[in-house]
Amino acid sequence: MDTAANNSEVIFPKGEPAPADYFTGKVHLQMLAQKTESNEYSVGSVTFEPGARSNWHTHPAGQTLIVLSGRGLYQEKGKPVRTINKGETIICPSNLEHWHGASPDSRMNHIAITNDKGAGGVVWLKPVTDEEYNAHEKG
Amino acid sequence: MDTAANNSEVIFPKGEPAPADYFTGKVHLQMLAQKTESNEYSVGSVTFEPGARSNWHTHPAGQTLIVLSGRGLYQEKGKPVRTINKGETIICPSNLEHWHGASPDSRMNHIAITNDKGAGGVVWLKPVTDEEYNAHEKG
Repeated sequence: MDTAANNSEVIFPKGEPAPADYFTGKVHLQMLAQKTESNEYSVGSVTFEPGARSNWHTHPAGQTLIVLSGRGLYQEKGKPVRTINKGETIICPSNLEHWHGASPDSRMNHIAITNDKGAGGVVWLKPVTDEEYNAHEKG
Repeated sequence: MDTAANNSEVIFPKGEPAPADYFTGKVHLQMLAQKTESNEYSVGSVTFEPGARSNWHTHPAGQTLIVLSGRGLYQEKGKPVRTINKGETIICPSNLEHWHGASPDSRMNHIAITNDKGAGGVVWLKPVTDEEYNAHEKG
């Protein structure tokens, strides 16, 4: 287990289990802010246990991820899987198919600022297969 | 110094000194994401040394603060100064005069999601006087 996952770095409550229909492995979600009239986004803290990941999905209005602890993986459709680290910000463009999750040997916590301008925040697609997830080792 | 300010919790580079015209004491700013077509906000990490604070200011389209470490102070015009803690989210409404900063005995780091929908992100006003800053002790 990555030392970045130890207790001294825990900032938010872990929250509730994320819906198994949209995630593989153990993932928890703690909402931090709901969409308001002036904030056209919600903010949540998402914690992925090692090996856990989201399904493939798109955001109709995009999303900003900020990694607060650990090490994870991020892939946009048609591009290689890339490693994302504590302190890194990832801008997910609108309507681009992608997934994110923990690396196999580290828990990962990120903030997700999910834009929602009337078309919803997320469109969920298929699970990320083990073959897709493990493709980062070949990169 | 608050133990929450120790190195194990440092997530982002400290960044550049914030402009002295708009802040009292030592404050650093590290930009994490710039406004884009789909993200109508910028994101920055702001670190206030003990006693440091912003000027009074407003946000034409509001702001979301998420405290990542330490303990700070937050005040909306006409309301008491309140303490804000690691893990806390504060929604600053549009055009409401307010200030934020560290508490006297703790460094404070927060993320600021500053909405900008064409009227700019911030309107800077007067410095927070020592009397205003120290009013939290009387609360």
